[in-house]
Amino acid sequence: MNSIELVNFRANFPILFEKVNEKALVYFDNGATTQKPEIVIKTEKEYYQQFNANVHRAAHQLSAQATSAFESARNNVQHLLHARHAHEIIWTKGTTESINLVAQSWGMNNLTCDDEIVLSYAEHHANIVPWQMVAEKTGAKIKVLPLDKTGIIDVDKITRIITKNTKLVCCSHISNVIGKINPLEKIIACAKTVGAKTLIDGAQAIANIPVNVQKLDCDFYVFSAHKMYGPTGVGVLYGKAEVLNAMPVYQTGGEMIKSVSFTGTSFHELPFKFEAGTPNIAGVIAFSSAIDFIHQFALNQADEHKQNLNDYCYQQLSLIEEVQLLAEGKPDIPLFSFIIAGHHQKDIGSYLDAEGIAVRVGHHCAMPLMEFLSVPGCIRVSLASYNSLAEIDYFIASLKRYIGITSDTDNMICVDKLKTKENETQLLLDKFTQVKSWDAKHREIMLLGKTLPRMSKELRTDETLITGCESAAWLTVIPSSTGVFTFSADSDAKIIRGLMVIVLAAFNNKSAEQILAFDIDQYFQELGLIQHLSPSRGNGLLAIVKKIKQAVS
Amino acid sequence: MNSIELVNFRANFPILFEKVNEKALVYFDNGATTQKPEIVIKTEKEYYQQFNANVHRAAHQLSAQATSAFESARNNVQHLLHARHAHEIIWTKGTTESINLVAQSWGMNNLTCDDEIVLSYAEHHANIVPWQMVAEKTGAKIKVLPLDKTGIIDVDKITRIITKNTKLVCCSHISNVIGKINPLEKIIACAKTVGAKTLIDGAQAIANIPVNVQKLDCDFYVFSAHKMYGPTGVGVLYGKAEVLNAMPVYQTGGEMIKSVSFTGTSFHELPFKFEAGTPNIAGVIAFSSAIDFIHQFALNQADEHKQNLNDYCYQQLSLIEEVQLLAEGKPDIPLFSFIIAGHHQKDIGSYLDAEGIAVRVGHHCAMPLMEFLSVPGCIRVSLASYNSLAEIDYFIASLKRYIGITSDTDNMICVDKLKTKENETQLLLDKFTQVKSWDAKHREIMLLGKTLPRMSKELRTDETLITGCESAAWLTVIPSSTGVFTFSADSDAKIIRGLMVIVLAAFNNKSAEQILAFDIDQYFQELGLIQHLSPSRGNGLLAIVKKIKQAVS
Repeated sequence: MNSIELVNFRANFPILFEKVNEKALVYFDNGATTQKPEIVIKTEKEYYQQFNANVHRAAHQLSAQATSAFESARNNVQHLLHARHAHEIIWTKGTTESINLVAQSWGMNNLTCDDEIVLSYAEHHANIVPWQMVAEKTGAKIKVLPLDKTGIIDVDKITRIITKNTKLVCCSHISNVIGKINPLEKIIACAKTVGAKTLIDGAQAIANIPVNVQKLDCDFYVFSAHKMYGPTGVGVLYGKAEVLNAMPVYQTGGEMIKSVSFTGTSFHELPFKFEAGTPNIAGVIAFSSAIDFIHQFALNQADEHKQNLNDYCYQQLSLIEEVQLLAEGKPDIPLFSFIIAGHHQKDIGSYLDAEGIAVRVGHHCAMPLMEFLSVPGCIRVSLASYNSLAEIDYFIASLKRYIGITSDTDNMICVDKLKTKENETQLLLDKFTQVKSWDAKHREIMLLGKTLPRMSKELRTDETLITGCESAAWLTVIPSSTGVFTFSADSDAKIIRGLMVIVLAAFNNKSAEQILAFDIDQYFQELGLIQHLSPSRGNGLLAIVKKIKQAVS
Repeated sequence: MNSIELVNFRANFPILFEKVNEKALVYFDNGATTQKPEIVIKTEKEYYQQFNANVHRAAHQLSAQATSAFESARNNVQHLLHARHAHEIIWTKGTTESINLVAQSWGMNNLTCDDEIVLSYAEHHANIVPWQMVAEKTGAKIKVLPLDKTGIIDVDKITRIITKNTKLVCCSHISNVIGKINPLEKIIACAKTVGAKTLIDGAQAIANIPVNVQKLDCDFYVFSAHKMYGPTGVGVLYGKAEVLNAMPVYQTGGEMIKSVSFTGTSFHELPFKFEAGTPNIAGVIAFSSAIDFIHQFALNQADEHKQNLNDYCYQQLSLIEEVQLLAEGKPDIPLFSFIIAGHHQKDIGSYLDAEGIAVRVGHHCAMPLMEFLSVPGCIRVSLASYNSLAEIDYFIASLKRYIGITSDTDNMICVDKLKTKENETQLLLDKFTQVKSWDAKHREIMLLGKTLPRMSKELRTDETLITGCESAAWLTVIPSSTGVFTFSADSDAKIIRGLMVIVLAAFNNKSAEQILAFDIDQYFQELGLIQHLSPSRGNGLLAIVKKIKQAVS
């Protein structure tokens, strides 16, 4: 995603334009729940406005329409997971209920005091406590897989823990504290050699990476809609049909029965046997459009922007000596947990909150992991695809300010500083796209101008002068060793300075090839710029672009 | 609610203006799920757009705001139920889960093979099957309360069924098939004499009648949001604090723990101990505004309009010889279950559906009741406060047409016919209020005009002539024995005929006092009429009103 794509992508999420504590919201708590795109909100709204009815039951059209949308959501999840059958997808109210269902239905009926349940130290409470309950009642033992230094399950030790007594292995695809992909292939293969079933908690993975349950060959895969751009109150239990078929029912009531009488009751087939009562119809239907949204933007695929967020945030955090990341090495998804010695996590959280930055602090429902890592809790910064490098800069600057670090380069124009400034404009650019009237846009341009660092007088030469611009204006070019260019610009006209920010945002940190290929006309068009500027200003804008393209040719 | 109030009230529900099978939707499946007012849809939308965040956890403002709204919804339910404490309100995903929670947590830990669970024949499967599961595992016996001829639990027989072995009595406040209030005071008092706990399924009652759990003195009261104008995926378990406190946890995971380690885990206090995992935050917050809406329109109080719907629908159904209601006597809420000998319920359902009328057919998740009543299934017509007498007329006419009854008064102008016609216009009036442009309103007026029966020539006399109206126009008055008036009107101008329908809708079936007191100016204002009509048409309108007022003075 380039700058303009990101601006457009962010426009899908109304909440990102909210203010918190009079600051623009920087939402870095995506591990707890992601924000919802307008299409998901709209789908839920339109369901209620146009075809709300109970499903699977009534004789009427509305119900038929609701049922069709509801069941097509199931197909959507099936395809997302590459599951063999749609009836392997069970609707629950969330990851937690999915695990409880398996624990009570499969666990209580398949485990004895001779059996062992294997978990890992990095599990969420939802993947620990339900098994403790089953263990307490059946007498089964719980064994725990240790982690290596990088925070993933230590594959060298799995054969010591997973033994012939192991009947079930449960672990997360990606821990909600570590942000790294566990070596599932090896773990599941090991479980298979001893005939154990496997349950994968995909709550943190499903929005971020592709998941193929047939390739994984796990028995159960569970996750929640609300952590993947979908509504609250919807979860999924995937289970292999043969395993689910052999399991007794869990909750009972309407929808899941075949016949009821006081002399005997029989139950429906999959998936309905596990879906008692009126489901979260609106939620499920809206969730389906969240999955479409994920596909549309390939959010669960390897993506340069998400990688950039991950690389940059990791790099910036690593540069702060005081920051101690809980695990060695860069995470696989942009999710970072750390402590700062001498500072309580809650104080840091509050300080960041006052700056408009939403992070999570505490044990993250992973107390055993905190114990394993010998920390009382930590700060977790978890990013999603709608986050920007500018937000990372803002967060890092706030964190440094809290710790008491002030940059010694504050009054210098250097590449780093420019990069930071360029990124900070991202938020302003977002706002610029949001405002509709030309008056408001004009005001935003003037504000953008104020963010542009002044160029020192020595740099204002004939060589840096932009010709064809009515006002005096200059451009300098700083190529980096990695082949990308950074531009610095200045003008004696405030409006030109504002326009320069907009132009630089499109070209900074790009390769010559990218710069030459960039469609600036469309960019101006989408920002609603060119049609409102006077001919001379419009020419000035094009003159800046011309100079940039010349500089890299 | 008078006509105009009903028109305004219906305007809260966008779906009521939808068409089904090219007919205006008549939604009579409110027992399955009610429609949602715009304020509920908007509340959910605004939550996602403005303060979506996970609750009870994070250090940031959004989370604090979400938590505050979430917990204030709990207080709202507390007040709705007149519960002693907010922590007696447990969020579930629906009635079914609420009952399953009690069955698994209380039932599995308090029942033995010496104990008896008492249910009734009229219970929903959700209040039967969970107890069958518990009975199967604990050895407890299930006993069933019979119903009397009117379909309520037979109080004369309760002491034979509820004995010293009874540990739990579960029954519905109002059966979802019978629509009558069960004699809960006597049943609960009887349960208390033997020390049994009581669980009341309030799914059908909560939207319709006031509920006071302290007065009822039941131990548990359960219901779903989606049957009371709220979203899907939200339910409530009310339990007395001392009973809930003594119960073990049900589902386990995040939110509900105090501390977790592999050596031992402890749980939170009420209400959190029963709320594992991220709840349906958006749903709960939207549900709270559904409760506000119920209070605003006093929907759960005795209300003349709902009484009228009940009286009229009961009367009209009773007048059709072929209709056999499942229980004797008028129900307490407008919910009617019946069969028509020689016609399969599904055929009737399909026919009504083709006419745009949504009803439910089948066993209504109450197979034991069907067995008790010796019917294979039935048609259920369940109304809500947004339904109108006109819709009942339309439904009755459709039903008669299906059975093959044609009225012998079809070509006569009689009071009944006029009443029907007047009521049919309700739907058109609804639509009229919805359309905004004057062009569209004009078209609607012309359509309304077509619905007005022509007046026979003999009635068009000097006496019935409306003076002061530019076009020729006549009005006849038919007072009824009950003191209300019905008007018949005609004109040679199509637009005047349309306007007459609008005027008559406001005055028909009213007493002289009501007619004289009715504020016709405001009515015209709200319909957006007077400002668009030419002065002569406006005067014509006022002349009709004047003649009506004179006629009843």
